[in-house]
Order: sequence, then structure tokens, then C-alpha cells
Amino acid sequence: MARKLNVAIVGATGVVGSIMRRLIAKERGNWGEVRLIASARSAGKQLEVGDEVLTVQAIGPDVFDGIDIAHFDLPDEVSAEWVPVAAAKGVVVIDKSAYFRMDPEVPLVCREANPGDAANRPKGIIANANCTTLALIPTLAALNERFGLVSMSVASYQAASGSGKEGLEALYAQLQKVGGAEGVGTAGNDLRLVLGEEFNAPFGAPLALNVVPKVGGWREDGWTSEELKVRNESRKILGLPDLKVASTCVRVPVAVGHSQVVHATFASEVTVAEAHRVLAAAEGVDLVDDPENMVFPMPIDSVGRGGTQVGRIRQSIDFPNSLEFFVVADNLMKGAALNSIETADLVRRELEAQQ
Amino acid sequence: MARKLNVAIVGATGVVGSIMRRLIAKERGNWGEVRLIASARSAGKQLEVGDEVLTVQAIGPDVFDGIDIAHFDLPDEVSAEWVPVAAAKGVVVIDKSAYFRMDPEVPLVCREANPGDAANRPKGIIANANCTTLALIPTLAALNERFGLVSMSVASYQAASGSGKEGLEALYAQLQKVGGAEGVGTAGNDLRLVLGEEFNAPFGAPLALNVVPKVGGWREDGWTSEELKVRNESRKILGLPDLKVASTCVRVPVAVGHSQVVHATFASEVTVAEAHRVLAAAEGVDLVDDPENMVFPMPIDSVGRGGTQVGRIRQSIDFPNSLEFFVVADNLMKGAALNSIETADLVRRELEAQQ
Repeated sequence: MARKLNVAIVGATGVVGSIMRRLIAKERGNWGEVRLIASARSAGKQLEVGDEVLTVQAIGPDVFDGIDIAHFDLPDEVSAEWVPVAAAKGVVVIDKSAYFRMDPEVPLVCREANPGDAANRPKGIIANANCTTLALIPTLAALNERFGLVSMSVASYQAASGSGKEGLEALYAQLQKVGGAEGVGTAGNDLRLVLGEEFNAPFGAPLALNVVPKVGGWREDGWTSEELKVRNESRKILGLPDLKVASTCVRVPVAVGHSQVVHATFASEVTVAEAHRVLAAAEGVDLVDDPENMVFPMPIDSVGRGGTQVGRIRQSIDFPNSLEFFVVADNLMKGAALNSIETADLVRRELEAQQ
Repeated sequence: MARKLNVAIVGATGVVGSIMRRLIAKERGNWGEVRLIASARSAGKQLEVGDEVLTVQAIGPDVFDGIDIAHFDLPDEVSAEWVPVAAAKGVVVIDKSAYFRMDPEVPLVCREANPGDAANRPKGIIANANCTTLALIPTLAALNERFGLVSMSVASYQAASGSGKEGLEALYAQLQKVGGAEGVGTAGNDLRLVLGEEFNAPFGAPLALNVVPKVGGWREDGWTSEELKVRNESRKILGLPDLKVASTCVRVPVAVGHSQVVHATFASEVTVAEAHRVLAAAEGVDLVDDPENMVFPMPIDSVGRGGTQVGRIRQSIDFPNSLEFFVVADNLMKGAALNSIETADLVRRELEAQQ
């Protein structure tokens, strides 16, 4: 029998790290050693992976010895430093940071769109796309294959947990302070006065009872990094370098689950019935579309769920070959941990077949 | 000196009614009598209009005697019954319900777009558009005049108060129950279980820590009434019967303030600089667009504010002659009460000039 591969979770202590441990535990039998790695600050911590209790090891040049596949979930600049170190040791790295995503020698993989790209990794690095992009891709890939995607306009409704522990805790702290106080956020009862300036972090403004049209950092011409990621990463994953994309990203007071309104135009004629048929059969897509019975995707129903949900599908009234729809995904699952796990599965099968 | 006109507020006891009373009090000197009217249930109630305390009168055939202009804020079917009664008495009715909006003999007026239409009212009725539509119009009207609006794709982020008192109270009650309880709405801590089914009303699902992609009632082909209003009312107010509109309406856990992401395409070339110039000079529009200093429109900053706010204006990367932007308005002010007051101002000046 073939040797079982060894896997590392780098950044094991964060919000996504805890979901990574849960998902790895579910497929524990596929792996030899599971190694948890984090910053020196977290080294020595004891964390569970299913029934096992593992000790977190500090990131360093030797910590990757013997590892076959490593999931990285670190800030961009830390990934920039350590991903090449692991890759140089022969580890296949699946990196969740933005740092390598647009590198032409690094494939950006979502198994519903471009699973074959995982095998073409000249640098030994595979990138995991942004959580907002990943929520869209399974639906877009299926519709693109059938109708030919030409353009899309996307508006996001992004959860606080997209900013990690800090974002989630800030939202809860704000809700704690605002509570159900009647009238807060209405005329004469200014939410900014109730919360005070301390609650401007980390979103730049209060998020409770508000929406903040800024996700990510500022880039040229008024765009945010998140909005450009949705455009550039969708083009790369879908293999559509000329795809037209308009994206505006907005943070909403939701704990988990990124939602998006999509207006998409295709090369060929579309119908809702045919879109339903395609999406009902699509991998990684749950078709949740029976509006009159109040069946449509919502963030609270996406939490902890694999894949993505799509519904509210309508044929555009005024635009030929176009559909309107609403997509939701758990930003910590398909938007991060689950996609990394699915990509690792592609690599594991490839490496095992080579043994 | 000309006789001062008499004005009525019909539906004086609701969320919008209380703002109507505040706004009328500010311009009290323009009016003779101010009469408060509501259902028989509320008759006899004492309500303030500035320093005056007025007694609410029950709606009925004679209650409109002597009134020149009446603001109606009643459910569609109640407006359908009583608006014609008042109009038959020679009252100019400004009606906030949806019932008369698409009637070709009823002008749909927003002073920033079509103030002249207020004078052309063969039925004596002027309609006030939907709150979501009204939040868009001042910005669209100004950009349309300069660049020629061809199409738009719109996604809304609508406040609970758009559903009136019931919606606002439901949101506060849900937030009271959820509070800042750490982890609610994350994996293993289902918000639906925390809240229970009693909190599905009036939005059809919990709104705290969620977004609900359904505003209004269901119409044919999966559309909601709200989505069709955004399309049809925008076309009518802007005088653009061929305007292409894609609209998806979503409720968010915000008390007051409807936000919208807009992707708009124009007949002629656009630049952000020229859009800024046009919008900075536009009536009813606050240009709030200095993103790097965290200056952009948000619902919490729109509360109680007149007019509409627009920001995050970007030139589309992939679409010619197109802009992306973010619009916010207090749905109870410009979205309802304030627009009705502004339309009444047009009618008052017209009637006074005729004396």
C-alpha cells in the first residue's frame, strides 16, 4: 500500500484554522501525520484535530521537513516570506493569502471551475482565491459552461468574520452595547454617539445597524482591493481573461456568510428553467430557489454548510441573454477552508497515483 | 395678502406620520390650518405639530372640507378608497401608496427630476414614489441630464423601518434577544434556533445577523413588487420609458437608511471628475466621496438628513461610458416624508400664485 501523505495547517489558531482542523479530522484516514504550525507566539499551544490533541509548532525553516502538502492561512506579507521556504523543501503549498494569486506561474484553483490547473504548479504553489470570489465561482462556472459568460455586475453583502476573529468580536461587542435598545440608529438617537469612536475599528465605522461600503484596502481610482480581487480572480479561475466585471463590496452586520447580488450576461440565450437544470446538476452548488415558499439563500442558512447556495434566479426584463440571481456561501468554508481542503484532495490523489 | 392654504396629514400616527409632523412644524408659517387625520381607531389622539397639540380626526367623507393639499400615507387599498374621495372635494392629494403611481393620469414627482409634472394632475392626484426609487432619483437625474442614462443594475440594502413600525420593532426585539452573545450565527450556534420561529415575522426570516433577499410581495417570474417598482417608477420619473433596469432588493439589519449599489451606463463618455462636478452642484444630492479619508455614504450617517448621499464613485474598468457608485438616503425622509413635503411645496407655490 502507498505511503500516506503528511499534511500541515499553517496558521492553525485562527478562525479559519479551527475550521481547517475540523475538516481535516473528518478525512483523517487519508493522511499520515497532521502537523499544526503557527507563529512563535502560539507555539506550544495544544489544539484538537478530532480526537487527537496536537502541539502547535513555531513556523521556521525546518518545520516543513517531511510534509507533503501544506495549507497556509497567514497575512499576505507572512505568506510572501514563508510559502517559498516550504515550496523549496518540496512541499506543495496551498496558500490562502492574496500574495501569489495573480502570479502567472501559480494556478488559482476552484475544483468546480479549473481542477486540472492544480497539477500545473511550476513553483510548487497553488493559490486559494478570495472568499467573495469563491462564493461566486461554482455558479458562474456552471452557467459559463452552458451559456458563455460575457459580463457581470456584482454587489456583495460581506460578513464580519471575513475580517477574522477581530472583525467577528468587534461586531458582537457592538451588538452587546447597542443591544435591542429601541430607537438606536433612528432620528435623534445617533448610533455613532451610542457606540463612540472606539467602535470604528476594524471596519472604519460602526457595523452594528449599519453597512460599510469598504472591504479591503484602497487602490487606485477609488477601488478597494476586494473589488479588484473579485474581478481579477474570477477572470483567472474561469479562464475568461476578457470577462467584464463591475464589483462593489460592502460589509454588513452578519457574523458568517457572504452574499452577493449578481447581474450576469451571457453569449447565448438563457432561460430560468435551463439555468435551474444546469445549477441543480452543478458540483458545489445548492439550488435554493422556491421564492413563494420563502426558499432562497440567506447567510444564516449558509453557516457551516459546504458548497454555495444560489436562488432568486430571474430572467432580466430589459437585458438580452441575462440573469439576476443571489448567491451565498459560508465565507469560512467554501470561501476559505473548504476550498483549500478540496484543492488538497486533488493534489493528494495526484501524488498518491505517482507513488 | 393671499389666503394661507390648509394642509392635512392623512396617516398621521405612523413612523412616517411623525416625521411629516416634524417637517410641517418647520414650515408652519406657510400654512393656515394643519389637520391630522387617521383611521377611526386613532381618532381623538393628541399629537404635537411643533408647539401645537392637535387632535387626530377620523378619516371620512367630510374630514377633507376646507383642505387644499393632503399628504396621504396609508396602505395601498386604503389609499385606493380615500384618495379619490379627497380629490373629488378639490383637494390636491400627494399619495405615498403604490396604488396610483403607474396611472398615466397621475404624475409621479421628485422635484430633482420632474418638478414640472406636479402641475399636470388631471385627477388632482400626485403620487410619491417608493423609498428605494426616491433614494436613487436625485443622483440619476443629475447624471442623466449630463451623460444620458441608458441602463442600470441596482442592488439594495434596505432598512427595517421600510416595513414601518412593525419592521423596526421586530429588528430591535431580535437584537435584544441575540444581543452580543458571542458566536451566535456561527457554526454550531444556529441563529434560527436562538430566535425561534416567532421572529420570522414580518420579514419571513430573522433579520438580525442576516440579510433577506425579499422586499415586498412576490410577482410573476420570481420578481418582487419592490424590484419592479425600482424599474417602473425610475422610468416614469426620469421620463425614460426605455431605460434598462436590473434590480434586486435585499433587507439588511439596519434601523433607518436605504443603501444601493449602482452600476450605470450612459450614452456619452463619463469621467469621475465630471460626475463629481455634476453631483456637487445637483439639488438634493450630497457628494460624500473621499474614500481614503473614510468619507463615503452610510445608513447611520443618513438618519434624519434631508436629500440623498452619493459616493464611492468609480469609472467602470470593463464597461464603456459607465460608473459604479453607492447611494444612501433616509428612507423615512427623502424616501417618504421629505419628498411629499417638497412636492407639496411646488403645489402650494402654484396655488398661491393663482390667488
